[in-house]
This record gives sequence, structure tokens and C-alpha cells, in this order.
Amino acid sequence: MLSIDEIMKARTAIAPYIHQTPLWHSQALSRLAGRDIYLKAELFQKTGSYKPRGMLWALMSLSDEQRAAGVITFSAGNAAQGLAYAGSILGIRTVVVMAAMANPTKVHATREYGAEVILHGTPQEAAQHCLDVAAARGLSYISSYDDDVLMTGHASLGCEIFEAVPDVAGIFVGIGGGGMAGGLAKAALALEHNAALIGVEPTGAPAMYESLKTGSAVRLPTVRTIADGLAAPSAGVACFELVRRRFTDVVLVEDDQIIDAMKLLMQRCKLMPEPAGAAAVAGLLAHAGKVTLPGPIVCIVSGGNVDLALLKQWL
Amino acid sequence: MLSIDEIMKARTAIAPYIHQTPLWHSQALSRLAGRDIYLKAELFQKTGSYKPRGMLWALMSLSDEQRAAGVITFSAGNAAQGLAYAGSILGIRTVVVMAAMANPTKVHATREYGAEVILHGTPQEAAQHCLDVAAARGLSYISSYDDDVLMTGHASLGCEIFEAVPDVAGIFVGIGGGGMAGGLAKAALALEHNAALIGVEPTGAPAMYESLKTGSAVRLPTVRTIADGLAAPSAGVACFELVRRRFTDVVLVEDDQIIDAMKLLMQRCKLMPEPAGAAAVAGLLAHAGKVTLPGPIVCIVSGGNVDLALLKQWL
Repeated sequence: MLSIDEIMKARTAIAPYIHQTPLWHSQALSRLAGRDIYLKAELFQKTGSYKPRGMLWALMSLSDEQRAAGVITFSAGNAAQGLAYAGSILGIRTVVVMAAMANPTKVHATREYGAEVILHGTPQEAAQHCLDVAAARGLSYISSYDDDVLMTGHASLGCEIFEAVPDVAGIFVGIGGGGMAGGLAKAALALEHNAALIGVEPTGAPAMYESLKTGSAVRLPTVRTIADGLAAPSAGVACFELVRRRFTDVVLVEDDQIIDAMKLLMQRCKLMPEPAGAAAVAGLLAHAGKVTLPGPIVCIVSGGNVDLALLKQWL
Repeated sequence: MLSIDEIMKARTAIAPYIHQTPLWHSQALSRLAGRDIYLKAELFQKTGSYKPRGMLWALMSLSDEQRAAGVITFSAGNAAQGLAYAGSILGIRTVVVMAAMANPTKVHATREYGAEVILHGTPQEAAQHCLDVAAARGLSYISSYDDDVLMTGHASLGCEIFEAVPDVAGIFVGIGGGGMAGGLAKAALALEHNAALIGVEPTGAPAMYESLKTGSAVRLPTVRTIADGLAAPSAGVACFELVRRRFTDVVLVEDDQIIDAMKLLMQRCKLMPEPAGAAAVAGLLAHAGKVTLPGPIVCIVSGGNVDLALLKQWL
């Protein structure tokens, strides 16, 4: 099930439509952490986050009938842009349901990529509304994270890291629903790489952390974090299984630590991440000791779709 | 005088201590400008700006006696870091005089690279104090921009652009005193490339613009702009000669246009430039028509040493 062949098939298929993003050594972070730190600058990916990797492969894997009928997802924003972009590349009609309070930058960008955007209620209400619209209109529902095929596409990100830094000792990655983390786990398992994988969640949205504690994927009653990209109301079931199987640990960071990591990335690394994109660095700075093997550490800067009005508040 | 040999000699000598910075196509800017736009992401250079290129070559070109005695410069900040970095690489003592109101981020970084920093009065007073300290202590004065050898080092930046985009039709570059512009002119002349070179200055610090109008390098009574990296009190004499000889034009942009360009680079390109680093993009957006030949345009994002407290005000 976790053979490298399927991942390589996905990688080859999506390659023409995504960037192989840069992976840079950071002197500033290395000095702070006392060991070699690399940044996977995935914020330079098409649409400003890693999401097109999985979305392209998910849509490519649909039947002709499903493609013709169109697809729908529920998303805080980045998966929305990823789906809209993938749909525009493959000529598939896309619909996205977002919570009414969704980041306006992401709503605007999603519409620009050609998707129909429906704004609806709270995140929980929007998630339900998405399923209702899918049924009413005969659209294929694409989960924004809890999908095995999607995660095979995301695994391409892990492959790029393992190729660029073969001796990587640990990788920090932000976790919302767990799609990127699941993809990373798939890559590590398929390549039989022994790097420690450390998930990072905001204290206000600890779905995967709680799932690991209780032993099954949980749904949170509420989520509250500045990192809208990590504010998934529940851990994905398929994601949870992969994280439980392969991750070393999931750690929590406060929103203030995420803001500090954003400032560090802006000031020292000249990158403009969104909060979800800075979470991995926040996790590194607070929990570097989780990587016990010697060797370099990679932090995935997963996205950069930040609302500048909100950024002003955080500064 | 403008043979490529001297530039290549400088390039080879400084290569181990600088980054060949990325040059990326920007879809967002290309859509806005209606033609292919590339960004030379020089904000990822060592010390966060292009300055080490010239400073390394300037220090490498000193006599043994001059190296032993140490060097001094006056700088708004980026040249300070460039000099301090070059001194630390080459084992040369460095002193930097800055205006009392200098950007605290840049003061701190300059001290971290190992230079002695003297804060003194207004920019004009600091420039004079620098010469006084040089004489009193027997230090070699290195101009932060008006130096032919320094500009030969900066020419390496131009060479990288002409190599990466051989058919470039025009290059936009911010101008403070004119050191980077002079280096770019040197590269274009030595390589006999016909790209249009367009300088961009803030309306509040138009030293080169006024110099071209009057026919000689002028000193401004006052400068006032958010782009501290472009707030040189005068155009360099050697810089002016190169700009007059090779540049197509120098255009002016308001501080508000620079802020808009910063926001665009942050939001769409995921880069964190300082105002001086965004000036070239501001110039492109207001004056793209200055490049009359068909072909791609390159904007140099020259630096990213931004003070986050000031950034908050600008947002």
C-alpha cells in the first residue's frame, strides 16, 4: 500500500503544474537552534501553499464521469485555492464552501482561480453545507485533508526534502487536519527513511494532539487560533492513522510563539509566511530536543497567504 | 576601463562569500504589467542586501598596510552590514558611523557582524564625522557607494541577471547614492548588453534625478523618505558618470507607491523586502512604458532589512 511507485506516479503526473520549491539552509535559525536548520520554502508553491500537490493528484484520479460533473470542497482557504487551481489546470468545474468569516485574501484568490465560492456560517456549519451542496448538485466531494489519494500527492513534498537533505534527522510540520503530515508520513514510510517527524499544532486547535492521546481521530467542539490554515475542526481519520503510525510526536505552540516565528522569518529570512506556515519554525524553537538523532532539521514553511490587515494586528 | 576581465576577477574572488541569489518569474507582476517580469531576489544575499558584493571587493583591493590599519564608512545601514561582514570574512577591523536615528535593526545587525558602530547626529553630520574619525584613527575610508572598485564588485549582480535572462529588455533598480546602479551600468557596458536601465528614486530623495537634470552630481539640502536605504544625501560622482553614460532614465516614486509595492511583494510574491528593496517594483508599476523594446523586465529586490515596528506603521 505504501510502495514508492504510486507516489512517483503522482509526482510525475503533477510535476508540470507545480514548483519544486527551494530548500535553503538558514544561518539565523541554525544559530538559534544550535544545529543545522533548513527551510523548505513551500510558500513559493503555486497558489502560495502546498495544497495543489494533493489536489492535482486527487482530481487526476477521478473517473471521467466525476470530472464532468465537477467537484466541491470545504476549506479555510488554502485547499480552496489548491482545488480551484487544479480544476483550472484540468478543466474541471470547482465549488468551494468556506465559513462566513474566512480570510478575505483567500476568498478573493480562490475566485480568481475560477472556483465558485459559497460563504456559509461557522466552520462546522460550512463543512455540513458542503456535503449538502455536493448531494444536491451531484458534485464529487474532495476532502481538503482526509483523503488517501490527496496525501499521495502531498507525499511529493516529502520526497523533495529527503532527496535534497538525505541525512535529515528531523522534520517539523504544521498540522491542521493532517493532510500534509499524512503525505510526509507516506513519503517517509515508502522511502524507509528514519527521520523523526514532529507535528506542530496551535494550543487552540489541537485535534491531532488530542487524537493521539485518546487513540482515535477526534472532533473538537471549538477551535481558536490565528493560524486559520491549521484551524481544522477535526483530525482526518486517514491522516490520524498515518501520523500515529509514523510520527515521533505532535507538539503544541501558543499563538504568540507562532507570531514570534513569523517575525523571525520576516526579519531574518526575508520570507512572508502566513501563521500556519510559521508554525513548524515555532515548534522547532520550542521543541528542538524532540529530534534526538544528530543531523540537520528541516522546517516546512507551508504557506504564505497572509491577510495584511491581520498581519498589522499581530505586529 | 570597462573590460569584462576586471569584473570577472572580482566575481571570482568574492564568489565564495556571497550567494548567487535566485531570479524568479513572477506571474502576479507579469499579469499586472502585461509582460514578463522577473524578480532578482537579492534580499536573500548575505546580510540581507547586495552590499557585500562591492564591500568584499573594495576590501580585497586594499594594500596590506590599509588592511592592517582598518576601515571606516558612513552608512544608512545596509552598507554598514556589508562592510562589517566583509571585514569579518577578511579579518579587517571595521568602524561604521551612522546617523543617530538609524534603523535599530540595522545598527544591531552591524554590531553582530563585528563592527564598531558610532551613532552621530543627522545623516549630513554623520558623514562629516566619519571623515574626521578616519583621519584621527588612520582608518581607510570606504565610500558606501561612490567608489569605482566597490561598483566593480556590485557589477557581479548585473552579470548574474544578464546570464539568467539574456534577452532582458529592461532592468529597474532603486538608486540611493548610485552604487548598485553604477555596478549595473558597468556590467551592461562591459557585456555590451542593450537592455534599458531605469533607476528609481523616492520623490523625497531625488539626488540622481536632480543630478541628471543639472548635469553634475548634486548634494540635496534634505532628504525625506521611508526608504532609508535610498536616502543618500548626494549622488556619487563616479556613480553619476556611469548612470549618465548608460542609464535610459531615472524615475521618481512616492513613498505610498513604495508601500504598495512592498504589500504586493509580501502578499503575492511571499517576499519581505525593505522599502528600498521594493522601489524597483514601484518604479515598474508606474513607469513600465520606459522600456520600449519587447522582452522581459527584471526588477532588483535589493534588500530586506526591514524594521517591523516601522512596517506596522506602513501597513
